[in-house]
Amino acid sequence: MTDINSLDLQAQEIIRQAAQNALEKMDARYQVDTKTNYTDLVTTIDRENEQLINKRLREIDPASKILSEEGFGDKGIRSLAGHVWIVDPIDGTMNFVKQHNNFAVMLALYVDGQPVLGYIMDVINHRLYHGRAGHGVFVNDQRLSTPRDLGLQESLVAMNRGLVLNGDEAIRKVAQTAIGLRMYGSAGIEMIGVITGQLGAYISHLKPWDLAAGRMLAEELGLIVKSIDGGSINVLSSNLVLVATSQVSRDIRQIIN
Amino acid sequence: MTDINSLDLQAQEIIRQAAQNALEKMDARYQVDTKTNYTDLVTTIDRENEQLINKRLREIDPASKILSEEGFGDKGIRSLAGHVWIVDPIDGTMNFVKQHNNFAVMLALYVDGQPVLGYIMDVINHRLYHGRAGHGVFVNDQRLSTPRDLGLQESLVAMNRGLVLNGDEAIRKVAQTAIGLRMYGSAGIEMIGVITGQLGAYISHLKPWDLAAGRMLAEELGLIVKSIDGGSINVLSSNLVLVATSQVSRDIRQIIN
Repeated sequence: MTDINSLDLQAQEIIRQAAQNALEKMDARYQVDTKTNYTDLVTTIDRENEQLINKRLREIDPASKILSEEGFGDKGIRSLAGHVWIVDPIDGTMNFVKQHNNFAVMLALYVDGQPVLGYIMDVINHRLYHGRAGHGVFVNDQRLSTPRDLGLQESLVAMNRGLVLNGDEAIRKVAQTAIGLRMYGSAGIEMIGVITGQLGAYISHLKPWDLAAGRMLAEELGLIVKSIDGGSINVLSSNLVLVATSQVSRDIRQIIN
Repeated sequence: MTDINSLDLQAQEIIRQAAQNALEKMDARYQVDTKTNYTDLVTTIDRENEQLINKRLREIDPASKILSEEGFGDKGIRSLAGHVWIVDPIDGTMNFVKQHNNFAVMLALYVDGQPVLGYIMDVINHRLYHGRAGHGVFVNDQRLSTPRDLGLQESLVAMNRGLVLNGDEAIRKVAQTAIGLRMYGSAGIEMIGVITGQLGAYISHLKPWDLAAGRMLAEELGLIVKSIDGGSINVLSSNLVLVATSQVSRDIRQIIN
């Protein structure tokens, strides 16, 4: 079995390279395509970053599988047995294109279904949030402590547009009850918000690559990560996920049940 | 009449001092009070910053009036005759308290009702957005150009919680039609979004101190600033304001009328 510590150091290098690539190409010309509809973008830089990351992961961990957003990973992964790397080459592609800000690169390693390594790179602010199960969470070299366990009426909450405009009445009530509502357009940036205590909760429909790294970091800090109905998460599916402090999680249960 | 160029240079110094004060006090203990309800905060740093700014404005422009958020300015201002300074000592107080990020200091000079000088300081990023009527808009020393005139379906739009959760159906349709919706919790940060082209529009209920500086900067760049129903703005009242590119403004009119 490959040494996790060595994989950790190499993965940090890989994600920083991918972030640097995105930063260098951001102001150049690149192609933007739509996927499911006009709000769902992908660029040649997403694809290039994913190929760069996956190629390096194959080198450092050849026996692993790779689950990645833009289709250059392994197809038809139905189990988390062994090493599975989960890759989001640019999270918040819309912000990358429109704002040149508020986007992330995300990476996680799950071993036999358990989150072991997690990385969220806030590219513009040059901050790598990284963690290893049982060893804590860091931003660059500085250790993060667990955010204060505040309740919903003392906490800012992030959600995405669909939930706020068209979500269940209960979800909209959560948005109304929080001390404030925020919307940044990147799961990575919103996960960073929760793990640093800038947000008390993040609620969103998340695909595996949106969720894998943030879940690892949040759980390592003792935060709650679960399905909005209180159930556990299946990292291989799309889930309506709540990431929150314990108290916000309890307050939300009061509203949703 | 005091020389506008000299006032401009001194006002830049004043707003940078106030920003520095907020930055230094941010991690210290300070008192937080609520105003109209639990989501409407004010801190001793807001008050201290306002007193600091107003005192210096009285020194550099003694004949002027001052309209400021926390009550240390002139009372009962009903006209914009002469010089009127409009002051927001911390815009996004909730973010200041909860996030230590995403807040601004704002300042504007109106002369006989016309916007002449405008300043929005993004405190955490050390970026002062400033402009003078007829002389352009700058971020620190770098001149800003007019954002691309994109339409609603190509633009990110920022609104506040009340409009998205409980606004008119037409406003909610605007939020749904935009390429994406964002919510940062600070009029200053959202105005910066529009003047830099990171957002195509910002729609919010704005008080004089939320609006005065951003309106000056946006109009100087050729952007649209008006009441959401298409009418002109009264800077002395609370308005439901649209700040947008020309094309987004036209697209929104199609939805709202």
